[in-house]
Amino acid sequence: MTRLAKRTSKKVGLPPGTLVHVGKKKARKVRMTLIDYDEEHFEEREVSEIEDCFPFKDLPTVTWINIDGLHRADIVEALGSYYGLHPLVMEDIMSTGQRPKLEDYDGYIFVVLRMLGYAKKTRQIEDEQVSLILGPNFVISFQEREGDAFDPVRERIRTGKGRMRKMGPDYLAYALADAIVDHYFLILEHLGEDIERLEGELVTDPKAETLQAIHTMKREIIYLRRSVWPLREVVSRLQRGESPLIKDTTLVYLRDVYDHTVQVIDTVESLRDVVSGMLDTYLSSISNRMNEVMKVLTIIATIFIPLSFIAGLYGMNFVYIPELLLPWGYFMALAVMATIGLVMVYYFRRRAWI
Amino acid sequence: MTRLAKRTSKKVGLPPGTLVHVGKKKARKVRMTLIDYDEEHFEEREVSEIEDCFPFKDLPTVTWINIDGLHRADIVEALGSYYGLHPLVMEDIMSTGQRPKLEDYDGYIFVVLRMLGYAKKTRQIEDEQVSLILGPNFVISFQEREGDAFDPVRERIRTGKGRMRKMGPDYLAYALADAIVDHYFLILEHLGEDIERLEGELVTDPKAETLQAIHTMKREIIYLRRSVWPLREVVSRLQRGESPLIKDTTLVYLRDVYDHTVQVIDTVESLRDVVSGMLDTYLSSISNRMNEVMKVLTIIATIFIPLSFIAGLYGMNFVYIPELLLPWGYFMALAVMATIGLVMVYYFRRRAWI
Amino acid sequence: MTRLAKRTSKKVGLPPGTLVHVGKKKARKVRMTLIDYDEEHFEEREVSEIEDCFPFKDLPTVTWINIDGLHRADIVEALGSYYGLHPLVMEDIMSTGQRPKLEDYDGYIFVVLRMLGYAKKTRQIEDEQVSLILGPNFVISFQEREGDAFDPVRERIRTGKGRMRKMGPDYLAYALADAIVDHYFLILEHLGEDIERLEGELVTDPKAETLQAIHTMKREIIYLRRSVWPLREVVSRLQRGESPLIKDTTLVYLRDVYDHTVQVIDTVESLRDVVSGMLDTYLSSISNRMNEVMKVLTIIATIFIPLSFIAGLYGMNFVYIPELLLPWGYFMALAVMATIGLVMVYYFRRRAWI
Amino acid sequence: MTRLAKRTSKKVGLPPGTLVHVGKKKARKVRMTLIDYDEEHFEEREVSEIEDCFPFKDLPTVTWINIDGLHRADIVEALGSYYGLHPLVMEDIMSTGQRPKLEDYDGYIFVVLRMLGYAKKTRQIEDEQVSLILGPNFVISFQEREGDAFDPVRERIRTGKGRMRKMGPDYLAYALADAIVDHYFLILEHLGEDIERLEGELVTDPKAETLQAIHTMKREIIYLRRSVWPLREVVSRLQRGESPLIKDTTLVYLRDVYDHTVQVIDTVESLRDVVSGMLDTYLSSISNRMNEVMKVLTIIATIFIPLSFIAGLYGMNFVYIPELLLPWGYFMALAVMATIGLVMVYYFRRRAWI
Amino acid sequence: MTRLAKRTSKKVGLPPGTLVHVGKKKARKVRMTLIDYDEEHFEEREVSEIEDCFPFKDLPTVTWINIDGLHRADIVEALGSYYGLHPLVMEDIMSTGQRPKLEDYDGYIFVVLRMLGYAKKTRQIEDEQVSLILGPNFVISFQEREGDAFDPVRERIRTGKGRMRKMGPDYLAYALADAIVDHYFLILEHLGEDIERLEGELVTDPKAETLQAIHTMKREIIYLRRSVWPLREVVSRLQRGESPLIKDTTLVYLRDVYDHTVQVIDTVESLRDVVSGMLDTYLSSISNRMNEVMKVLTIIATIFIPLSFIAGLYGMNFVYIPELLLPWGYFMALAVMATIGLVMVYYFRRRAWI
Repeated sequence: MTRLAKRTSKKVGLPPGTLVHVGKKKARKVRMTLIDYDEEHFEEREVSEIEDCFPFKDLPTVTWINIDGLHRADIVEALGSYYGLHPLVMEDIMSTGQRPKLEDYDGYIFVVLRMLGYAKKTRQIEDEQVSLILGPNFVISFQEREGDAFDPVRERIRTGKGRMRKMGPDYLAYALADAIVDHYFLILEHLGEDIERLEGELVTDPKAETLQAIHTMKREIIYLRRSVWPLREVVSRLQRGESPLIKDTTLVYLRDVYDHTVQVIDTVESLRDVVSGMLDTYLSSISNRMNEVMKVLTIIATIFIPLSFIAGLYGMNFVYIPELLLPWGYFMALAVMATIGLVMVYYFRRRAWI
Repeated sequence: MTRLAKRTSKKVGLPPGTLVHVGKKKARKVRMTLIDYDEEHFEEREVSEIEDCFPFKDLPTVTWINIDGLHRADIVEALGSYYGLHPLVMEDIMSTGQRPKLEDYDGYIFVVLRMLGYAKKTRQIEDEQVSLILGPNFVISFQEREGDAFDPVRERIRTGKGRMRKMGPDYLAYALADAIVDHYFLILEHLGEDIERLEGELVTDPKAETLQAIHTMKREIIYLRRSVWPLREVVSRLQRGESPLIKDTTLVYLRDVYDHTVQVIDTVESLRDVVSGMLDTYLSSISNRMNEVMKVLTIIATIFIPLSFIAGLYGMNFVYIPELLLPWGYFMALAVMATIGLVMVYYFRRRAWI
Repeated sequence: MTRLAKRTSKKVGLPPGTLVHVGKKKARKVRMTLIDYDEEHFEEREVSEIEDCFPFKDLPTVTWINIDGLHRADIVEALGSYYGLHPLVMEDIMSTGQRPKLEDYDGYIFVVLRMLGYAKKTRQIEDEQVSLILGPNFVISFQEREGDAFDPVRERIRTGKGRMRKMGPDYLAYALADAIVDHYFLILEHLGEDIERLEGELVTDPKAETLQAIHTMKREIIYLRRSVWPLREVVSRLQRGESPLIKDTTLVYLRDVYDHTVQVIDTVESLRDVVSGMLDTYLSSISNRMNEVMKVLTIIATIFIPLSFIAGLYGMNFVYIPELLLPWGYFMALAVMATIGLVMVYYFRRRAWI
Repeated sequence: MTRLAKRTSKKVGLPPGTLVHVGKKKARKVRMTLIDYDEEHFEEREVSEIEDCFPFKDLPTVTWINIDGLHRADIVEALGSYYGLHPLVMEDIMSTGQRPKLEDYDGYIFVVLRMLGYAKKTRQIEDEQVSLILGPNFVISFQEREGDAFDPVRERIRTGKGRMRKMGPDYLAYALADAIVDHYFLILEHLGEDIERLEGELVTDPKAETLQAIHTMKREIIYLRRSVWPLREVVSRLQRGESPLIKDTTLVYLRDVYDHTVQVIDTVESLRDVVSGMLDTYLSSISNRMNEVMKVLTIIATIFIPLSFIAGLYGMNFVYIPELLLPWGYFMALAVMATIGLVMVYYFRRRAWI
Repeated sequence: MTRLAKRTSKKVGLPPGTLVHVGKKKARKVRMTLIDYDEEHFEEREVSEIEDCFPFKDLPTVTWINIDGLHRADIVEALGSYYGLHPLVMEDIMSTGQRPKLEDYDGYIFVVLRMLGYAKKTRQIEDEQVSLILGPNFVISFQEREGDAFDPVRERIRTGKGRMRKMGPDYLAYALADAIVDHYFLILEHLGEDIERLEGELVTDPKAETLQAIHTMKREIIYLRRSVWPLREVVSRLQRGESPLIKDTTLVYLRDVYDHTVQVIDTVESLRDVVSGMLDTYLSSISNRMNEVMKVLTIIATIFIPLSFIAGLYGMNFVYIPELLLPWGYFMALAVMATIGLVMVYYFRRRAWI
């Protein structure tokens, strides 16, 4: 539940722009990497002091600063001040409960996205805030922990394959957003497989754990939707190309990301419908079973209760019970009982209970 | 479920525009056909090398290139390069999990549609991606496998009946889109008949399999909606006539396709409501039956349990039970039992249980 | 179900504008009537050949041609060609599964409406397509079968009462649309009465048939909504007065029709909510009854099962059971049984089960 | 149900503008009152002939004509003709099933509102149509029956307190609309109290009548929503100030009415949610109770059925049953029975059933 | 429920602008504080007579007047008249059932917000109306009772830290709105924790009280939504910066508040979905348990009822029952019984009931 109502109380009452890290500390150490490139040139290094990145600001090349770990306010502060970020932007970078959003500032665009992960065992979706700053010749990205989602982008810059090295920072930002959205498909595949397995279980052998798993799944999808819907708005605004920081050649790529986002939403909505349907299936199959159980009980009880009554009748110790004295009385009683039993069976057959 | 979360992981991390076929390989061999026509002239042939199509690009006649089978990247690449398609368009043609969409590029329109099929036995809707490229004097269509939905269009071109040969490539594109949407009605008819049959079963003899079939139906309709809703947007944008590639005389025909699309959506939504209603019917009929079963059990048990108790009473072996010694004790006991039984029956009648 | 997925497969694959009658043939013979009038003059006659209507086209008077029966393509074709209708319009007139729509062509407006009927016995809503063509001095109406909904309009033209004869063809078209929408209120009244009666049954004596009737009602309302919602859009567009064929003095009347349409939709939505509520009532009353049945069973069984056990105990044939030898043993046993029974009754009272 | 599908069939087929009273006749006699005022002057009188009101039309003072009772077409006709009302307006005034609406005619505004009442005993919402005509120097109001909702307005005119006498007829119209909307809060309070009482019953002692009452409540709220939602649109259009008949100083007051309307809708929606929740509570509490009942039955039956079997075993009359001959056989049997009973009780304890 | 339909009847019929306090009187005494500041200067004092505040109106410094307690009409009246507030504004300040709204008057902006509180014990959300008047150089705030939510703002003014003292009254109004919205997160955290605890209970040990608590939670969330949704509109309008009273530098801060509001709504919606899901879980777990109970009963009864019948059979007192005379009859009977029992057990095993 803390996942659902995340923004913690430690921020309440502080003036806006106060830099306090909100959220779980997911990385032990802050790791800073810098990649600087243009069509001919490429440089990549890990920096230990944030100030080492500053000289690159004034170079015409594209600079990508990536920060993994958000718990050190001083780093965010130093970087933010040097690059002229608004205090509220710095605050948002460190408060990791933000929903995806895009804010257009003077000289840079600030984008918050959420990177998803899926823990197979607990069937829990984990998520992490990724903030991007897109400036005229730089991109700064902040992640809560080290992840490998950006590795293919790095690789593409290194090898210089494709358009990457020929295009500007807006294309780099696109590539990062694309990497994140592509990652969603992985999560959806995992979710889809789990749902498929649960559906199988539901048909062959529904157990209380199956129900529990369906409910968990449902909650995770509620959670997923919360990350995905605002994402669409963000990408839609990017792709509408209102900012001069994004060149027209990049817009067609952003439209592609937008398509993927819509596809993600579509899939999430379908998964949600399917999971809801599974709950119905579960409930109706329980009703069905209860009905079965009831029928068996009713058939057995209804057949034997009258027979037992007759047996009890002739077990009474009255001094004078004429039937008891008949030599073939026992057999007559058996015959009556058999008749009653058969009539009952016939009745149940006709009602299609047996 | 893989149907619900289709875009596979093999694309994740690749640069945009990389041509990789995503989806099941549904055709063994790629088949390419070319039809070239104007009002007087008509030529149709199957081509083995995609390069054979290139000379037609510069002729003023309408050229329709149809590719069945999407697994060969080299063909898509060669064709795309020659006709100046954007790398993302080529990528989308080969990634078969696209939702219907329309993209307006410089010099051509790119449309993704989905062709549906219905497997009667498994009650599963199968679908296939159809991509159309509409240029100033050509239409290129890509299908995942050979299908006969386009045959009537071919026939109309061959015979030269109707307006087909007199109009441009935009009318051809309309005819193809119309053929696809018309095909939806077939699917809906099949679905409708199946639902009708299920409804009959539901009234006469509801079984666990009926429930299963209803759930399957519901899922297929969830799936169908996903294909149909974006289709409306695509056709709506086509029919608004924003592109110079589509002539005004064709617009009225596209409006007709739009009407059909809306009708398809209407029908899908109604089917969905009906199927949901069937689930309710099923559940309430099970409740009803359970109630019946319970009543029978209760009536039998409630009548005989007290009687059995009395019989048990006089089956006790106490040395002194005055009633046992009465010569008419047995008949008195029977009379008491009969009275109790009749009172019970009367009570149930009054409660309208019998 | 065929009612829900109506457009049949015989049209699939045909070129647009092919005239094929789609739907059930509801009239045996095509009946054509012609009314021609202005403020002073009035002429009404039944025509046997459609060509007899043609001379009226060029007269300045208002001409109303009404065709009942749509299965003869030649009539529609001849009329359409003479009056310059677009092939798609003629096609739509003959395909009776159209949803209500309005299309603005050059020189005329084409409106599709649906006339409803309600079969009291089967509780089924039947509907019929009505197409109207409004031209500068004529109105052509097509119905699937003869109906009396237009009779009051004819009567008003004949008698010359009200504004009818003083106004143009747009007012006539309004009058026809108004007659159709007014007819909806009749249907709604019938539906409303049936729902009222069902509600009564639900309270006094719910049976399985009541449930069945509620489900039928629900489906008919799904069906009704499909006809009614697009109607609103049609009338709304008419009333916005975008076409020069509709004069300003008529607009206020169309606004009135629009109000009625909104009222129809309102009522349909309310009926739908009420019917949904009835299903809930039914289910909860079944739950209630089941609970009652269970309680009776439980009370009887719970009281007598222990007593029967005690009776069984002293029915055992052990050689030495001390209680059996006591002369007042039987009465003691009876006393114990009575005590147990009373305690049970007290317990159920306290739990408010009795 | 007739309340849900009100517009009766007697209007069907009549030409537009025909004055027929539709709805129940709620007042025996038509009562007409006239108030004429400006800042200095005030005149109030009951008129017996509608013609007595006519001279006031040309005075510069504000004239308010109020008609209670709508069944006399001649009065509406005479008044309407003199004040130049459109025939459709007169028709709408007399057809009492109108939904709230605003129509802007040349020279006057026509507003239909609905006044609500709540019959405590039957828990039914009753409603009545109120029509207002706002002209340049007059307001005409039509009510179905005499009511006291307008009395405070009259009182304010009489005493001359507040702004009333200083402002024009638009302020008077505002005051009347405000009085009607204020009245809604009374209804909501009554409804709210009833719902509160029902909720109490639901927790302490849910009965079948409670369920019935909840269902009635739900239906009344469906009904209420139908009156309230269009009201918002009406007041919103008034407050947008498009008509020259409404002065800018009055707009801020209309905005206030609009706020109240939104608040009414909010409350209605909340009440609806709460009532829906109550149904769920009821159903789950019944499920709970059924579970309780089942448990008691199961515990008793499960404990005693095996014991009775043992007793039955030793009640058999076989010539040789070794246990029967043992002198301590009876006590052994009792011991076995006690053991079985205790094991059962232990088992139920562990399963937390007891 | 009175919480749901709050606006009381004492206002009905009064002229607009009448100052009557509506709502519970939550503060015993009205407390007025005044803070006056600019960048260099700071003054804070508690005032006993409202007139003491008036001289500050004409100073260029920012003046913040805060009134706790709304039951004294004379204070609101005096303050409102001096500051030129519209009578309807004063009325709204005193009627505490207002929904959040923003009204733009000539010379000042009037904002109504709702401050929330959460009573842990009763799990009830309490709320309070906060009205803000933002003028060119003053902010007036009205609260129903003293609260500490504004204390951090006061502290920031006192210490002069951050931007507070350098900016105008619009920034102060922003700070107050921000404090209120921040407070919502606290409430959501509390709610979230309670829901988390309930979820735990639901899994480990669902009781009737759990159900009750879930229902209460659901109602509180209905209530919460009513306060939160209109809040979004208010903040959205503030942040669009249409009023000259709000400077551009403040807009970016208001955008931040808007983001928080959207986040609050997101969280409320998620909580609502989760609580709805919990109800489903509860119901399906009850169904599950009932099924368990039924199975136990059925197994025991179905095994022993036939056995008891056989025992009863040989307890009959017929003079001639051949089996009884066999010396090994008893053992044979036992053997038959054991066989039947084992067959039953085997049958239940196969059906997976045991």
